[in-house]
Amino acid sequence: MEYYKAPVKDMMYMLKAFQYTERVHSLEAFEGFDLSMVESLLQSAADIAVNETLPLNRLGDEHGIKWDPETYEVTTPPGFKEAYQKLIDNGLVGMTCDPNYGGSGGPEVLGVLFSELSTATNKSFSMCPGLTRGLIDALAAHGTEEQKQKYMTKLISGEWTGTMCLTEPQCGTDLGLINTKAVPQEDGTYKLTGTKIWITFGDHDMAENIIHLVLARLPDAPEGIKGISAFIVPKFIDGERNAVNCTGLEHKMGIKASPTCVIDFEDATGYLVGTPHKGMRSMFVMMNAARLHVGVEGIGLAEIAYQTALAFAKDRRQSRSLDPEKSDANAPADNILVHPDVRRMLLNIKSTNEALRALAVWISVEYDIAHHHPDEEARQKADDIVAILTPIIKSYGSERSFLNISEAMQVCGGAGYTTDWNIEQYLRDERIAMIYEGTNHIQALDLVGRKLPKDGGRMVRAFSEVITDMIRAGKENEELAEFTDYLKELSKKLTSVTMELAGQAMADREVAGAVASHYLNLFALTALTYVWCVQVKYAIESDAPNKDTKLKTARYFMHKVFPEHETLVRQINTWKSNLMEFDVEEL
Amino acid sequence: MEYYKAPVKDMMYMLKAFQYTERVHSLEAFEGFDLSMVESLLQSAADIAVNETLPLNRLGDEHGIKWDPETYEVTTPPGFKEAYQKLIDNGLVGMTCDPNYGGSGGPEVLGVLFSELSTATNKSFSMCPGLTRGLIDALAAHGTEEQKQKYMTKLISGEWTGTMCLTEPQCGTDLGLINTKAVPQEDGTYKLTGTKIWITFGDHDMAENIIHLVLARLPDAPEGIKGISAFIVPKFIDGERNAVNCTGLEHKMGIKASPTCVIDFEDATGYLVGTPHKGMRSMFVMMNAARLHVGVEGIGLAEIAYQTALAFAKDRRQSRSLDPEKSDANAPADNILVHPDVRRMLLNIKSTNEALRALAVWISVEYDIAHHHPDEEARQKADDIVAILTPIIKSYGSERSFLNISEAMQVCGGAGYTTDWNIEQYLRDERIAMIYEGTNHIQALDLVGRKLPKDGGRMVRAFSEVITDMIRAGKENEELAEFTDYLKELSKKLTSVTMELAGQAMADREVAGAVASHYLNLFALTALTYVWCVQVKYAIESDAPNKDTKLKTARYFMHKVFPEHETLVRQINTWKSNLMEFDVEEL
Repeated sequence: MEYYKAPVKDMMYMLKAFQYTERVHSLEAFEGFDLSMVESLLQSAADIAVNETLPLNRLGDEHGIKWDPETYEVTTPPGFKEAYQKLIDNGLVGMTCDPNYGGSGGPEVLGVLFSELSTATNKSFSMCPGLTRGLIDALAAHGTEEQKQKYMTKLISGEWTGTMCLTEPQCGTDLGLINTKAVPQEDGTYKLTGTKIWITFGDHDMAENIIHLVLARLPDAPEGIKGISAFIVPKFIDGERNAVNCTGLEHKMGIKASPTCVIDFEDATGYLVGTPHKGMRSMFVMMNAARLHVGVEGIGLAEIAYQTALAFAKDRRQSRSLDPEKSDANAPADNILVHPDVRRMLLNIKSTNEALRALAVWISVEYDIAHHHPDEEARQKADDIVAILTPIIKSYGSERSFLNISEAMQVCGGAGYTTDWNIEQYLRDERIAMIYEGTNHIQALDLVGRKLPKDGGRMVRAFSEVITDMIRAGKENEELAEFTDYLKELSKKLTSVTMELAGQAMADREVAGAVASHYLNLFALTALTYVWCVQVKYAIESDAPNKDTKLKTARYFMHKVFPEHETLVRQINTWKSNLMEFDVEEL
Repeated sequence: MEYYKAPVKDMMYMLKAFQYTERVHSLEAFEGFDLSMVESLLQSAADIAVNETLPLNRLGDEHGIKWDPETYEVTTPPGFKEAYQKLIDNGLVGMTCDPNYGGSGGPEVLGVLFSELSTATNKSFSMCPGLTRGLIDALAAHGTEEQKQKYMTKLISGEWTGTMCLTEPQCGTDLGLINTKAVPQEDGTYKLTGTKIWITFGDHDMAENIIHLVLARLPDAPEGIKGISAFIVPKFIDGERNAVNCTGLEHKMGIKASPTCVIDFEDATGYLVGTPHKGMRSMFVMMNAARLHVGVEGIGLAEIAYQTALAFAKDRRQSRSLDPEKSDANAPADNILVHPDVRRMLLNIKSTNEALRALAVWISVEYDIAHHHPDEEARQKADDIVAILTPIIKSYGSERSFLNISEAMQVCGGAGYTTDWNIEQYLRDERIAMIYEGTNHIQALDLVGRKLPKDGGRMVRAFSEVITDMIRAGKENEELAEFTDYLKELSKKLTSVTMELAGQAMADREVAGAVASHYLNLFALTALTYVWCVQVKYAIESDAPNKDTKLKTARYFMHKVFPEHETLVRQINTWKSNLMEFDVEEL
């Protein structure tokens, strides 16, 4: 299976296309990480992913996670521990982390692209280093120097792994309802008691220690979300077992090789991270990176599903071409790639998945600017773009990827529904992405309720500036204008909808809740139209070798995907309709 | 679990609503099957489904089908055989079949509604009587009197079950490629040799005999689809084992308790059904009924998923209402039904699933008219409507139901992704519906390439007449006009798209292939808008007790689902775009 050659090639194309935009190229800040270095790192990371973890993917799904109700021990499928050791040996966990704590200091964009490859080859497995990375970010932002030395170094090397302990049985979306208690001890530590659920890799046998980042309440905590503090709770402290146990596993539709644990804390020793009652800050550092990665997971799974469907289609003969000239007289039936609908399904996936990949590259490039650019204003602007696009890629990306994988299954007909072709596993593995790390509607509320109005609309202005620059570029180049005309059309509609929504939502907050999900999708289509323009502009002006293919794919997108905004605009225009008028008994 | 009370109530409402349209009410032809009889039969069928087969649903999924590679014997999950016996004891298999062969002679609409209930409670299980019913129809249409006496009676009683053996490894969609041979014997029988795949309930232990309807070629058969004949091949002939064996099972994403068999015929004895080389006729009789039932399966699974999500939502508290007046001061969080987006998801399901149910009722009522009306013209018109709507309910219905179940999962958040709430099984069980009995795109080609042009557009005219009558009724009733205005808008757009498509497709057949799937969805939205008008008209004019709820649901549909046509119209307007311009290496 050489599935990854195509995506790595496309990733490099996109990096060049974004390097070509007028924004300062982020790679400059990363010594030793020029384009060719990034390419060779991606290739070797892909080799490891394909050779070590892809063969464990179906096996892991079938074998699942074992949990011993007597010892509370969790065992991953055969081969997982060895594959994880390979990641460590190759320094893949800390590729983009701070060199002061043992990382390689690579750009975020490298981490994000690697994340696509590792999810595609084994999503369950890739969640362990993914969560660890989130904890590293949280400690980098809010940990003390001592905590960084003690935990970050071991997490970056991969010797220890990390978790996020947020959810409890009575609270998922609404973390203000958290009950877990943290009682301060005389020695400055805390004793934590409570039950957390949905803890990914909450326990396992792949690493020697597990560091939990736990949200809990201090005895004097204010009610609700403003009384949540964050704590480090290690499974082992100086070799001694802490009072943290996995007391059960969830049984899920997919990601079956990823342990989803119930974790009980019973007077477990913990250490405060950051300021008391301000634990949500640490959690949001983890959460934002995690949300981007959720979007990227979908791209990876849709990519491998696409490659699978394409391989199937190239081999399959069925029925005759509608155009007799394309018929193969030497065979009893034609290859199914002569059928327009088979191409339609494949191009739906290709044109949206490449757009989502470009969006992921864009966000990561801005992330790198936000963290490394010498100029404060440039950092702020980049940070604004990251902030506004993160809910977009998480929500629209997970939804579209689910549909894309389903479409790849459809290309294969009955074969696609069997376990033989693995697409059914990709579909099951992807479905959770619409739910975890904040459900998709929570992303929409984050966009509409928080990010749009923030700082007088500064974030959306940063986004609009970039769009306007591209529309302007189209005025000077006729070949580009074919594509920027679409951007102009949609950007105009988005602006007008945004203004109307602001007015409507001011008068009635329920309106914002009612249309937020549609609005997010409208925003997403604008962003995807933009990233197609970025790719097309680079293709035209640099005369890239794959220029024709990129232009054709972009054109397909404008003809067949772009029209989705028409429905969204009309749906939004009926605002909250009669949603709230139904009595509960009428539902 | 009393899930079925709501759907049975809604089914009865719809029967009354269609009875109220100006078309002759089909139940009149069925002595003893008035509305109250139908209701009591549905209630008792639902009781059996809920008490006998629902408890086996998750169990069947987990246990799966066992196949013995030495004896070739197939074993269904524990309890299946006993539950099947309950179906037989209650006469549920032959409820709608010909009384001359032991059936109860009920209307088709009763069978279709029962099919919704039985799929909802256990899709895998319900496929066995479903396939049997298809074979009964084929024999009723094309069997000799002797064949009817010998096979139909046993199939109608449920003692024997039936299969459809079409697909072979090299041919699914394209049945012209069938290789299975049938060699005539001196005694008038045939010897069949070949391998069939995807044979649902191709072998099992629930009944004493299995009757296969097999497509095969006679030695003198013309090439392609015009050389296919149909044969009865029983597993046992007069108690002796025939040379028919299950040599393997498929491993699938869902419907895991339904055996999907590889069936080998090795000089197996068979009997010709109908005319030599005209086997596709028998198959199409089975296929058309099967396609309607595939649409109905989705309605059933979406309904139970909806009921599950609604039950979850009624219990779950999370976050605060956007409207402070709706906040519950006595609890730390509000019930999630105060959140507009949760209602939006539920109403998306409710408004489309009730529309699809109404569409199924409409098709079945027309089916009954087509088979029992004394007037030939009325029969023809009804048959035309059945023919044009069958691909619509199969394709749009299966697609929408898959999305609806996914939306129900979303309502439940993480819980929905676990096996605890079963929605994940409904989603896996439903996914095959877009593929089997002719993929959804095959339905679209059937609509665009066959049904639209047939007999100078007679079928579409029959459909249009019904629509026009409803628009006219709206002119006389202001309350109804709110809804028929939408129908008018869409029907106008559909007419104009249909005419343009006819022109475009004449010039280039690939255009028809490229837009057929979008066109089918546009047609489907028109049909769903119509059936909402039927329900609303009845509610208004009869002042039905649930009038308010029906009007609100219809209004929600017009505001939030109806706009989907906007995208379709624009997508269709780019015709085949650049689909065929991609070289294979560019994909």
